[in-house]
Amino acid sequence: MPAPISNRRVEPAACEAAIAELKLLVGDRLSTAAAVREQHGRDESYHASVPPDAVVFATSTEDVSAVVKICARHKVPIIAYGTGTSLEGHVAALHGGVCVDLSRMNQIVEVNADDLDCRVGPGVTRKQLNEYLRDTGLFFPIDPGADASLGGMTATRASGTNAVRYGTMRENVLALIVVLADGRVIRTSKRARKSSAGYDLTRLFVGSEGTLGIITEITLRLYGIPAAISTAMCAFPTVSEAVNTVIQTIQSGIPVARIEIADELQMDAINKYSKLSLKVAPTLWLEFHGSAASVAEQAGMVQAIAGEHGGTNFEWTTNAEERKRLWQARHDAAYANKALRPGCQVWATDVCVPISRLAQCIEETKADLATSFLPAPLVGHVGDGNFHLTLVLDPNDPKEVAECERLNRRLVARALALDGTCTGEHGVGYGKVDFLVAEHGEAVSVMRMIKNALDPDNLMNPGKIVRM
Amino acid sequence: MPAPISNRRVEPAACEAAIAELKLLVGDRLSTAAAVREQHGRDESYHASVPPDAVVFATSTEDVSAVVKICARHKVPIIAYGTGTSLEGHVAALHGGVCVDLSRMNQIVEVNADDLDCRVGPGVTRKQLNEYLRDTGLFFPIDPGADASLGGMTATRASGTNAVRYGTMRENVLALIVVLADGRVIRTSKRARKSSAGYDLTRLFVGSEGTLGIITEITLRLYGIPAAISTAMCAFPTVSEAVNTVIQTIQSGIPVARIEIADELQMDAINKYSKLSLKVAPTLWLEFHGSAASVAEQAGMVQAIAGEHGGTNFEWTTNAEERKRLWQARHDAAYANKALRPGCQVWATDVCVPISRLAQCIEETKADLATSFLPAPLVGHVGDGNFHLTLVLDPNDPKEVAECERLNRRLVARALALDGTCTGEHGVGYGKVDFLVAEHGEAVSVMRMIKNALDPDNLMNPGKIVRM
Repeated sequence: MPAPISNRRVEPAACEAAIAELKLLVGDRLSTAAAVREQHGRDESYHASVPPDAVVFATSTEDVSAVVKICARHKVPIIAYGTGTSLEGHVAALHGGVCVDLSRMNQIVEVNADDLDCRVGPGVTRKQLNEYLRDTGLFFPIDPGADASLGGMTATRASGTNAVRYGTMRENVLALIVVLADGRVIRTSKRARKSSAGYDLTRLFVGSEGTLGIITEITLRLYGIPAAISTAMCAFPTVSEAVNTVIQTIQSGIPVARIEIADELQMDAINKYSKLSLKVAPTLWLEFHGSAASVAEQAGMVQAIAGEHGGTNFEWTTNAEERKRLWQARHDAAYANKALRPGCQVWATDVCVPISRLAQCIEETKADLATSFLPAPLVGHVGDGNFHLTLVLDPNDPKEVAECERLNRRLVARALALDGTCTGEHGVGYGKVDFLVAEHGEAVSVMRMIKNALDPDNLMNPGKIVRM
Repeated sequence: MPAPISNRRVEPAACEAAIAELKLLVGDRLSTAAAVREQHGRDESYHASVPPDAVVFATSTEDVSAVVKICARHKVPIIAYGTGTSLEGHVAALHGGVCVDLSRMNQIVEVNADDLDCRVGPGVTRKQLNEYLRDTGLFFPIDPGADASLGGMTATRASGTNAVRYGTMRENVLALIVVLADGRVIRTSKRARKSSAGYDLTRLFVGSEGTLGIITEITLRLYGIPAAISTAMCAFPTVSEAVNTVIQTIQSGIPVARIEIADELQMDAINKYSKLSLKVAPTLWLEFHGSAASVAEQAGMVQAIAGEHGGTNFEWTTNAEERKRLWQARHDAAYANKALRPGCQVWATDVCVPISRLAQCIEETKADLATSFLPAPLVGHVGDGNFHLTLVLDPNDPKEVAECERLNRRLVARALALDGTCTGEHGVGYGKVDFLVAEHGEAVSVMRMIKNALDPDNLMNPGKIVRM
């Protein structure tokens, strides 16, 4: 496991003074209990917990601003926390300091149905929002695996299975309220659908992982629930044939909403876990959104394309129950992987490459994995060129940890050489700080200039994204 | 006409020294001819020319880097120039300095058909790119009125009629090569379709109007030319009915590619200019992209919605000649407006509001205009909530200039009060510096912090976007 960069902890006296002052401000909304701190120092990844010195449960933008001002005065680090479902140690208190838990800021402030947008607190989760929207005929499409908070999804530039059609958080955040490192509050944009009014501060804070400020309100785009949905599933002789089906589908302008891939290892794991007898071969799932006529037409067009690429067992349906059955196998992938080695943890890789390089990247990766002793099923958001290996490891076995590091390092290098990125949707945290330098080179110095300008004392989630 | 902020011109001696050094570097690719400087100090707006001290015709990223390094050493301002088709004085050399003309960097470096992307020099124009792509079955959808350079379109975050479906430059730039204020060169991103790898430098430079660096290469998204296109045109009793048709169309999930509006004044001008007898009433044009069956279905669905809102004279067609005829009237709008007062100039306003506020914004604006002596036809990209008044004025008549300023000021204040923006697609230049402060408040100080971090000597297109 990479060692946390925790050598520059905050001065204990400064931290104690800040906590004492915070306690006067927020009362019992501050906790220094070991269990609470331990929980707030870890996410869902293989990274060990690095607990903060205290946790404040914030209730409003003004509250966050007051907390940040106190911490800034004492030069104490501040780490924002949503649901703790990040995957690269984003919430680890590497330098100590105060964790600001935003989960209580879970109000859906406003839904503007005519404008297809809404304003939400950072603690609202994606499932909570969609539950709330159910009767409006609208939905929010971004769906990382976890039921993450929308603040956290914004901060990591999350995506998921719908990105090929609906984009990522980058495309779906219209405006933000942000508390800056000195406690000042800004709104990054008005609610207009587009604007050329100055620097794109919204996009600067999307993906900034709490290192430039704390997001306390998000204006999001919404979409009408499609009149009809069709789902298709199809097996292919090789990953290349599956990927070529995807390329041709997208080039044909078929407005596919989801295209997911699983390799034969993943299909085998699913069969074993879910007691199915699906073909053990690279498999695509596709989903189409539109009118009844249009989704039938789209499925038919893709069936023809898949046929040209050796696709077999093509099934498609608009029936809700049947659709659920087809997707179930894909949804079971995560559970199936954990069941491969009960009691073990998973290390999810996250490279994303141009789609023309995807087949090559996956095939070279699978050849590399064939020499490893660790199981590593593969799933991917193949329409975007993004795929995940699930490395199933015992985190207490240094040999297994070293093997994961080796495989991941080689995978990232391969993706970068193919003009891809080390992280399609999980973010940098502190797990990928060095990969960021390998990926962006000199541009990281510009990131550092921005970080230094907005947070000169390096107090906002220090040690993440860039080393100062 | 607002006075240019030209009170802090560069030291003449420093400027002369820089120009002498540049001349050694680039030879006859540097010009100090009055006519060349005059042309490079003006765009297509009402803003008067503010000529630079010299113009360098750059040929490569390395060339731009060398030029910037010389200027930086002498503390001489640098202004990037594409086609000079901006609308808010973006290219005016307010503090003097050197204009870097990028029009010779017009190479289409690479088209990746499988990935639906391409890399182009900043001097490539949108029409040049689409001409080049014609045989590939691909196209680039962003279409501001002018045949602007893609570097300029990136720098102003341009859009046009297709944004409702394809987004603006914000959504369609994948990566940039940028020469920074000190001459260093960065690439902002790899070519992957999505990434969570650090701060979104791509989006930071999109819309930065040459104030943070000079864009020397752009990686753009491309799209497959749709199998079929249908175009529809329809008149409405009121602007509200037209806008409500648009809202319902978008909420129904109909993936409309274009929705344009013109008011009755604009239709009257078009009739007179083009010798047509179109109904003098608020009019919508719509375009649908997809399969033959899908575009027919979409047009039919919108016809039904328009019918519910009093739409009359609904015509739609997939025939290329007929489509051209329907669009011709919309394309004639700009010429029709200029013909209203031969010899006059136009001042194009550019507010954009949430679509639920659009009818109110247009109606209040038309009531305001009814008291004015200036003609001001209205067209708009109504799917985005963006509309333009064409104020037709004699720029030498102070009374007319003052009236334009008054109307525009009131229009912007109205749009901001409706949660809109002062500029949907034209950018800030120096014409909207004060409106930016009205729109963003404290957030402008963050823009200033970023500008100061990346360009501490305020040499990159100074006086634009933010005052330092």
